[in-house]
Amino acid sequence: MNNFADEKINLDALKKKAFNFRWAEVEDGIIPLTAADPDYPCAEAIKKAMAEYIEDGYFSYTPRMGLKEFKESFSRYVKRRKNEDINPELVLPIDSAARAMFEIAQTFLKPGDEMIVFDPCDFLFREACISAGATPVCAPVSIDTSTRKMDLTAIEKVITPNTKMLGLCNPHNPYGLTYTKEELDYIMSLCEKNDILIMNDEIWSDIIYPDAQFNSIYCLGNKRCDRVLSLFGYSKSFGLAGLRIGCMYTTDKEKFDKLVNKSQVMNTAGGATSLSQVAAIAAMNETEDWFNELIDHLTSNRDYAVDFINKIPHLHAYKPMGTYLLYVDISELGMSGAEFTAYLQEKVKLAIIPGGHQFFGDMSEGHVRICIATSNGILKEGLNRLKKGVELLIEEKSL
Amino acid sequence: MNNFADEKINLDALKKKAFNFRWAEVEDGIIPLTAADPDYPCAEAIKKAMAEYIEDGYFSYTPRMGLKEFKESFSRYVKRRKNEDINPELVLPIDSAARAMFEIAQTFLKPGDEMIVFDPCDFLFREACISAGATPVCAPVSIDTSTRKMDLTAIEKVITPNTKMLGLCNPHNPYGLTYTKEELDYIMSLCEKNDILIMNDEIWSDIIYPDAQFNSIYCLGNKRCDRVLSLFGYSKSFGLAGLRIGCMYTTDKEKFDKLVNKSQVMNTAGGATSLSQVAAIAAMNETEDWFNELIDHLTSNRDYAVDFINKIPHLHAYKPMGTYLLYVDISELGMSGAEFTAYLQEKVKLAIIPGGHQFFGDMSEGHVRICIATSNGILKEGLNRLKKGVELLIEEKSL
Repeated sequence: MNNFADEKINLDALKKKAFNFRWAEVEDGIIPLTAADPDYPCAEAIKKAMAEYIEDGYFSYTPRMGLKEFKESFSRYVKRRKNEDINPELVLPIDSAARAMFEIAQTFLKPGDEMIVFDPCDFLFREACISAGATPVCAPVSIDTSTRKMDLTAIEKVITPNTKMLGLCNPHNPYGLTYTKEELDYIMSLCEKNDILIMNDEIWSDIIYPDAQFNSIYCLGNKRCDRVLSLFGYSKSFGLAGLRIGCMYTTDKEKFDKLVNKSQVMNTAGGATSLSQVAAIAAMNETEDWFNELIDHLTSNRDYAVDFINKIPHLHAYKPMGTYLLYVDISELGMSGAEFTAYLQEKVKLAIIPGGHQFFGDMSEGHVRICIATSNGILKEGLNRLKKGVELLIEEKSL
Repeated sequence: MNNFADEKINLDALKKKAFNFRWAEVEDGIIPLTAADPDYPCAEAIKKAMAEYIEDGYFSYTPRMGLKEFKESFSRYVKRRKNEDINPELVLPIDSAARAMFEIAQTFLKPGDEMIVFDPCDFLFREACISAGATPVCAPVSIDTSTRKMDLTAIEKVITPNTKMLGLCNPHNPYGLTYTKEELDYIMSLCEKNDILIMNDEIWSDIIYPDAQFNSIYCLGNKRCDRVLSLFGYSKSFGLAGLRIGCMYTTDKEKFDKLVNKSQVMNTAGGATSLSQVAAIAAMNETEDWFNELIDHLTSNRDYAVDFINKIPHLHAYKPMGTYLLYVDISELGMSGAEFTAYLQEKVKLAIIPGGHQFFGDMSEGHVRICIATSNGILKEGLNRLKKGVELLIEEKSL
C-alpha cells in the first residue's frame, strides 16, 4: 500500500477544502506549492477515531485542561520520538500551534519588552510578539552556504536590557535546518546569561529526513529548561490544520499555570475541540506505519526536487534536514520574490511563497519557499513549470 | 419518533464525555442538572454532515474568514427564526460564543473603561470585561415577582463617563426572561444617549417557549444597531459545546473589521475548525423537525419542573420564557446557594449550580440554577431528590 501515490491525491476535495493560498483559493489550473499543508489525505486511523467519536452524537463540554488521554499520549509521544521528558500535567491542548505562540507571547511579554525573532523565520513569531504589544527585534541569521550553518552570533548582537524572549523555530522554517546540541547550548547559554525566555516551536520536529537528526532543546536537560515555553501542532505532520489542534508545554509549573490562566480554558473561552483532541490522540498513537511511509515519500520528493531545482540556471535550493519546505535562492534572477512568484503564477500557473518581509522577514528577500508535501506527480509537474518559468524569464531578460 | 425519550439518553457516553460540572466530573450516582449542556444526543443531521466531511480525509486550512456556507446559512437562519437582517459578510465564525465575548470586550475596551454587567447574569460577561483590563460595574436588575419584570432602571444609575459597553444577555440567563420591544428600546436609548456599545449575547435566542416571544435588539432597526456587537453559539440549542463553535456579527463594517483583526483569524492563530463549521451549517439548515420536537420536550420539562418545585416548601421557581434553565429562590431556607447545593450533593446525590458571586453575581445569592435539558425520567428523579433534600433540611433545621 502506498498512501502517498499520485492516485491518492483527491483534487476535487482539495479544490473544495484547501484554503490559505492553496487549491480552493487559486484559479483553476494553477498548482499551489504554497502553504505548509499537505495534498495527501490524513492517516486512516485518524478518520476512524473521529468517526467513532461522532457515532453517539455527544459533543459535550471537554475537561477545561484538555482530555487526559491527549496529555498522556503527548507525553509518551515526545519521549518516544524525541526523548523529551514532559509531565502530562504540564501539557495544555490548545486550538493550533499558532494560537499557542500568541498565548505564550501575550502571557510573558508586555509593551516595552523585546523579543528576538530570527530573520528569516516564519512570520508568526513576529506577529505573536506584536500581538502582545512588544517589539520584535530581528536577528539576521544568515547561512553559510558551504557549512550549512546559521550565523547564531547574530543573536548576541541584538540583545538589549529589554530583551525578554527569543523565538526558536526548531527545525527552522524556512531553512529546513535542525540544530546541533552545541548550537542549542550556545543559544541557551545566551538566554541564561541575559535572563531571556525561549519560545520553542517544535511543530516541524517530526518531519526529519533519514540523513539528519533532530535535537530538542530539552536535550540540554530539563533542569536548564524552565525558561522554555514549548509548542507543537498537528497541521504539518498529520495534515490537520483545519482541526486547529496543537499544545503548549513546559517543565515549570508556575509558568504553565500562567499560560493556563491567560488562555481562558478555565472559563471555556479558550481550548481545543473534543474531536480535534481525539484526532490528535489517534495521530500520536496509531499512525506509526503511515508516518514512516510519509518520511520515505518526502525523502524521495526532497531528493528529486533539490536535484531538479539545482539544475535550473540561477536557482539554488538548500537541501532541508527537516520540514517539507524548500528554501530557494533566486537572487541571480535580479527580481524580488514577490515579482518572481507573480511571474510564475501568470506565465506557468505555479504558485509558491515569496520571500521578503511579509512571510519570513527582510533577509529572505531574493528567495522563495516551495512546499513538497504532495504526490510525486504533482511535484514533478510543478517543478517542470518552475523550470519553464525560469527559462522564459531568461529569454525575456536575456540573463 | 421521540428524539428526547428516556431511552435516548446514553449515560455511558455522558460519563465519558460530559465535563464542566457534568456526568464525567461528578461521582457515580450523582445526577448533574448543572452546566447548560444537554443530556440528549445532537440531531442526526449534524452527525451525518460531519461523517461525510471526514470521509475523504482532508482537514486543510479553512478560509481565514470562515466557510462561505456558514456565513450564508447564518444570515438565512437569523432571518428565518428571528427576523434579523444580517449581511453574511459581517459574520465571523469563531471558536465558541464565550470566545466571542472575550474578543468583543478585548477589541473595544481598555483599562479605565467600564462595562455594565447585569446582576444576576452569566459570569462570562464579567470575565470578558476583566480580560480586557476594564472594570465590570454591576447593575442590580432585581425582578418584580408579580410582573416578572427586571428593574432596568438600575442600568442608568450605574452609568458614568467611563461606561463604554453594556452586556445584554437576551434571553437572560439565569432569569430565563425575554425582553419586550419597549425594554430593548429603553436600553438602546440609554446607550445612544451615553454612547455605550452593546455586547449582545443571543446564544439562548432559539430556546423560546411557545407561550413566550423573543425580540432581538435588531427589531429596533439596523440603523440603530451600529453600536451592537452580537454573538451566537451552537452549544445550547444544538448541544455542540465540545465542538467550540459560535460566531460574532455586526451591522457596522468598521467594527466588524476591528473584530476580525483582533481575533487573529487572518494569520491562522484564531478561528473555528472546519468540522465544527460543518456541524453548525447542518444545525442551521437541517434540524428544523428535531428542533421543534426539542421545544415540545423542553416545554413539557419546564412545566413539570416549575410546578413540581413550587410545591416544595420554601422553594420558588421562576417560569422561564426562554433557556432550559430554572432560576430558583431558596432564600427561605436560610442558607447560601453554595451551602444548599453542597447539602444536596452530599445528602441526595443531586448536583445543581449555586447562585452567588462566582457564576451569576452577588444578587443571585439565595438562588440556585437547575438545567432541565435532559430526559423526563432523569429530570423527575433529579427533582424528587431535590424535594427529598429540602424535606431532610426542614427536619434537620426545624424550619
